[in-house]
Amino acid sequence: MELCDRPKNTNVRISLPAVCIVWQTAMIILFGVFIRYNEESDTHWIEQRKAKNISSDVENDFYYRYPSFQDVHVMIFVGFGFLMTFLKRYSFGAVGYNFLIASFGLQWALLMQGWFHSLDYSDGKIKIGIENMINADFCVAGCLIAYGAVLGKVSAVQLLVMTLFGITLFAVEEYIILDLIHARDAGGSMVIHTFGAYYGLSISWMLYRPNLNQSDRLQGSVYHSDVFAMIGTLFLWMFWPSFNSAVTDHGDGQHRAALNTYLALASTVLTTVAISSLFQKHGKLDMVHIQNSTLAGGVAVGTAAEFMLMPYGSLIVGFCCGIISTLGYVYLTPFMEKHLKIQDTCGIHNLHAMPGVIGGIVGAITAATATESVYGVEGLRNTFDFDGDFKDTVPTRQGGLQAAALCVAICFGVGGGILVGCILRLPIWGDPADDNCFDDEPYWELPDEEEAIPPILQYNNHMRNKDM
Amino acid sequence: MELCDRPKNTNVRISLPAVCIVWQTAMIILFGVFIRYNEESDTHWIEQRKAKNISSDVENDFYYRYPSFQDVHVMIFVGFGFLMTFLKRYSFGAVGYNFLIASFGLQWALLMQGWFHSLDYSDGKIKIGIENMINADFCVAGCLIAYGAVLGKVSAVQLLVMTLFGITLFAVEEYIILDLIHARDAGGSMVIHTFGAYYGLSISWMLYRPNLNQSDRLQGSVYHSDVFAMIGTLFLWMFWPSFNSAVTDHGDGQHRAALNTYLALASTVLTTVAISSLFQKHGKLDMVHIQNSTLAGGVAVGTAAEFMLMPYGSLIVGFCCGIISTLGYVYLTPFMEKHLKIQDTCGIHNLHAMPGVIGGIVGAITAATATESVYGVEGLRNTFDFDGDFKDTVPTRQGGLQAAALCVAICFGVGGGILVGCILRLPIWGDPADDNCFDDEPYWELPDEEEAIPPILQYNNHMRNKDM
Amino acid sequence: MELCDRPKNTNVRISLPAVCIVWQTAMIILFGVFIRYNEESDTHWIEQRKAKNISSDVENDFYYRYPSFQDVHVMIFVGFGFLMTFLKRYSFGAVGYNFLIASFGLQWALLMQGWFHSLDYSDGKIKIGIENMINADFCVAGCLIAYGAVLGKVSAVQLLVMTLFGITLFAVEEYIILDLIHARDAGGSMVIHTFGAYYGLSISWMLYRPNLNQSDRLQGSVYHSDVFAMIGTLFLWMFWPSFNSAVTDHGDGQHRAALNTYLALASTVLTTVAISSLFQKHGKLDMVHIQNSTLAGGVAVGTAAEFMLMPYGSLIVGFCCGIISTLGYVYLTPFMEKHLKIQDTCGIHNLHAMPGVIGGIVGAITAATATESVYGVEGLRNTFDFDGDFKDTVPTRQGGLQAAALCVAICFGVGGGILVGCILRLPIWGDPADDNCFDDEPYWELPDEEEAIPPILQYNNHMRNKDM
Repeated sequence: MELCDRPKNTNVRISLPAVCIVWQTAMIILFGVFIRYNEESDTHWIEQRKAKNISSDVENDFYYRYPSFQDVHVMIFVGFGFLMTFLKRYSFGAVGYNFLIASFGLQWALLMQGWFHSLDYSDGKIKIGIENMINADFCVAGCLIAYGAVLGKVSAVQLLVMTLFGITLFAVEEYIILDLIHARDAGGSMVIHTFGAYYGLSISWMLYRPNLNQSDRLQGSVYHSDVFAMIGTLFLWMFWPSFNSAVTDHGDGQHRAALNTYLALASTVLTTVAISSLFQKHGKLDMVHIQNSTLAGGVAVGTAAEFMLMPYGSLIVGFCCGIISTLGYVYLTPFMEKHLKIQDTCGIHNLHAMPGVIGGIVGAITAATATESVYGVEGLRNTFDFDGDFKDTVPTRQGGLQAAALCVAICFGVGGGILVGCILRLPIWGDPADDNCFDDEPYWELPDEEEAIPPILQYNNHMRNKDM
Repeated sequence: MELCDRPKNTNVRISLPAVCIVWQTAMIILFGVFIRYNEESDTHWIEQRKAKNISSDVENDFYYRYPSFQDVHVMIFVGFGFLMTFLKRYSFGAVGYNFLIASFGLQWALLMQGWFHSLDYSDGKIKIGIENMINADFCVAGCLIAYGAVLGKVSAVQLLVMTLFGITLFAVEEYIILDLIHARDAGGSMVIHTFGAYYGLSISWMLYRPNLNQSDRLQGSVYHSDVFAMIGTLFLWMFWPSFNSAVTDHGDGQHRAALNTYLALASTVLTTVAISSLFQKHGKLDMVHIQNSTLAGGVAVGTAAEFMLMPYGSLIVGFCCGIISTLGYVYLTPFMEKHLKIQDTCGIHNLHAMPGVIGGIVGAITAATATESVYGVEGLRNTFDFDGDFKDTVPTRQGGLQAAALCVAICFGVGGGILVGCILRLPIWGDPADDNCFDDEPYWELPDEEEAIPPILQYNNHMRNKDM
Repeated sequence: MELCDRPKNTNVRISLPAVCIVWQTAMIILFGVFIRYNEESDTHWIEQRKAKNISSDVENDFYYRYPSFQDVHVMIFVGFGFLMTFLKRYSFGAVGYNFLIASFGLQWALLMQGWFHSLDYSDGKIKIGIENMINADFCVAGCLIAYGAVLGKVSAVQLLVMTLFGITLFAVEEYIILDLIHARDAGGSMVIHTFGAYYGLSISWMLYRPNLNQSDRLQGSVYHSDVFAMIGTLFLWMFWPSFNSAVTDHGDGQHRAALNTYLALASTVLTTVAISSLFQKHGKLDMVHIQNSTLAGGVAVGTAAEFMLMPYGSLIVGFCCGIISTLGYVYLTPFMEKHLKIQDTCGIHNLHAMPGVIGGIVGAITAATATESVYGVEGLRNTFDFDGDFKDTVPTRQGGLQAAALCVAICFGVGGGILVGCILRLPIWGDPADDNCFDDEPYWELPDEEEAIPPILQYNNHMRNKDM
């Protein structure tokens, strides 16, 4: 039997509990010191409401954003989690570690983003509510994207470290892009997807495993695991309109962002199918493409979803991204592994990096070409937030700012990834050996092998054994 | 090994990409010419709001309908998609083709329904918003129902053709029923389910395969595929209240439609279980019934959900439909296959056709018996939309209109299905041979056979082989 | 072949259909006599709205609560249903019986809760709307929790009986706790979880099977069934904020409850992982813990979610519950089975009973320490509903009331469970033999064995057989 001892270093019995307990304790202390309810989630709301002459409870931001929040929440935990279950023997790790790092990440994100965006200078506290919850989930999304690149090759402790730094970098990057540069990025094409993807790819590059082919037998899918992965794909796909509209302006902003995303995603599905069929023998479809490239349109329309991209504009963006993303899986992923030494388990370069960059560019162009005749005077100011320090910004300049933001996202992703990759190369994190990758066995109690036979087969085996 | 060449005609390497690219390009052009944002999703909303003295952003229809839209969206993609994964070896096709045709269908539906319902005559543009998105999803539902009848027996290209014509017929039928006849059909018992089911059944009749038993080995389920199918069942069942209430009147209309549907569905589950148990040896339950007949109540309450059907009325409708639908699976499906030459893979006749017709009749009766004492003067006018050209309609007349609408739906379904069935019999669409039906193999890259063994079994096989 | 006849007593061909049909008929009659639409779901709403000068349709409670309702609905049917699919050969029973008893339970709950809470004394009718639908789902949750303790060991008829009495007891207990004692319990830590868990555990104790080890071969999971169970876990986890906030006060109440639950659950995940890893050989994680203990925080924060628990308070509650719940699985479940003769299939003592009690205690402490300086004068009155007969209640007294409520919940659970357990021991309910537990075979038509082999394996078996 192969139940021989595994290499020692995958034992995380000390490090994993230690990290979880210590970090969670730190969260409690920091939350105790810094975090309080905001006006709308505090019991004083009823008094505030009267004082501010707000006519109805329905004006509480909760009712504008909670349905979108729940959809985003599903994307983070079921969407990302199940999308990664496609490997034949890494479903526990996919969905379980996704669960773990998202749960830690959202707490750390509430703090990090809170310090930058929600600090009440009157008392030094961060005041949180529904919008912070959505933004924390967004922040986590960046780290989950990065997880896709290293899926199956790292330990839970490494993932937690990666998340700690990822969230930190994200919050700084986001602050620079949204507040200092004053770019708009509703669905996070740049802030979330471009950053997250390059962060993950750089880490994967730093952790390059020349002998990963020793795990080849485990690097594919099985029939059922591909169906599980489709659960992830579909929940991401269906709720992406909520993702891109969750923090846009009330009213037409949310309405338009949802509509644009809905259209872009529909268009992507058709071109993904077309290219997938065109590049396979006999025109057969490849589940890898269907599971991933169909989502590229949602990524690419993230920045411009709240702009007047126009319905046909959304379709065009989706059209192009379905093609580019699928071609990426066909040509680029093998090329990157062979020549650039970047092993990208889930192909996040095709699903998040390229579409993210495209999304940033589309956003820049759409912003630069915005006119008062299309947007209306007030609509233009409203959509691009041309007020306060930025009240004299003109669309062309805004286009430049958007482009600058894209560069910042890429730099933070690549730079941060290299830095964190160095840390993760330390031999203390319990990562698996090359022939042990893509395998739940080192980190999870698996059901007994004998018992693990689908019971329906036992009869067969039984009969066969008798025959023998 | 059986990896011999498949029959040539399942090769869709030219036709499938061509159809996808050309049709998607056509969509982009048509959207460019015709489709624009409506008032509530346009940046001018902020000005309109002030001009019209609308007090709050929350009055944007987005907030009334978006949660229902997302539920409907889940029904379309996860609900229908996973409901059809029950076949042991057609899960990729079930969920993948469902994804493809729904994505195309919703775009074409936005155009077709737009021309009939949302055309702005001042500039010749179709103005779309959240309600159009819901209606497009509804329109797609009709085609997905039809897919259920031909599941496993057609190629992706045939499905796209079927969807193109299905959406077109749907839009015309819907216009006749809702606008010309002025029938009410909130949940689409007639417009969606009756039409969709007869459309699919007629196509299946036209595509009758006398030697389909050559695929018998693949026509059943396996344990896991039945569990996957329950995901579809449950998401359809849970979100059906949103389906039936998504486009009803704001306020009590949506409230009542959701409540009636919730009750009808609960009732259906009990009678389905009863009949399923009663007609099996030893009282065992049959997953086919649980997966399908439990939904019949939602279909049947579609038309009357917004009327004063009364809570007990909803329970009665659900009660009857659970019985009828389950009996349909026991007696009618085999009868139809043997004597009427209609091969109905998913049993849509039991889940959509019969309950749809019942729903139409229930709607007609409920409308005909509506009184001012029950509805209130304003409530009656409001619920049945007795204004404009129809302000003199009386409930009894409305009952007649509802019945007429049901006939229109059946005629469009049968007639359209026969027509489209003829087209689909052309030998150019790449459909599978009789012994190749219900099999993903001709159309999908499947995981390698050797690798496809659940790894946990490899040890066993390994041991066994050594023993031998 | 082992297709020999099963013991006679699992034949439910008469009893199951009879119970379903008779009870459903009774529901129809009772609904006909008692249940009507409430003001907001009736067509008279439009007149009422004008009469009461309600400015907008959006003030209809439907819009405040429907998104939460749908989330709760998903928890009941997909969450609980799939959480219990972890057994290798009881997935049909898990998801199917869950479906059945929830569908019956919610109807009976509408009546029982209606008589206590929504009776209109002017006409003797129960008036229902969206809040009743949520409360009916809540009521059902208690019975589904109890199902977890007896999973795999009872027949559908027993489950229906258990649900009938469970709902009845629940409604009385709830009336005592919420109305007579005037305790607050937004997320039902006491009313739902404590009651439901002790109800189930007592029944399981009454139905103790000394020879259950005869089913040992079926009492574990397989790889895929654990992934299915994670679907249940995640949908429960993600939507728990909606569960705890679904019936809280409009505005800040819902907002705060969702936020507190979100935080508590995140914290629980980290400590669950820590303890799971710490207590396994090599630090491997156990899916049983990940599937269950990660939810304990949501249970424990149920009562206090609407109070000013503070974000760090929520984290602390989650922190402790993750630890306690996981330790429960490691030590307590085996102890209870061996020494207390309580066989708890899903470990509901660890997931619902202990966290529920903790939740009650946390609620009592939080209430007792509430101050006007933290809540505001109006906020305090509003949050604890200090008006009418209870307008002179002070927080310390409220703390005592909360503690009393916890005792009531435990007493009802234990007492009711023993009573119902006696009834369920009658030899007429068709329960399975000891060596037949945890098996779908006696109650479900299973896919043909030969056909049930994942087709991909057929080649292998085929080859192997040829070799032999």
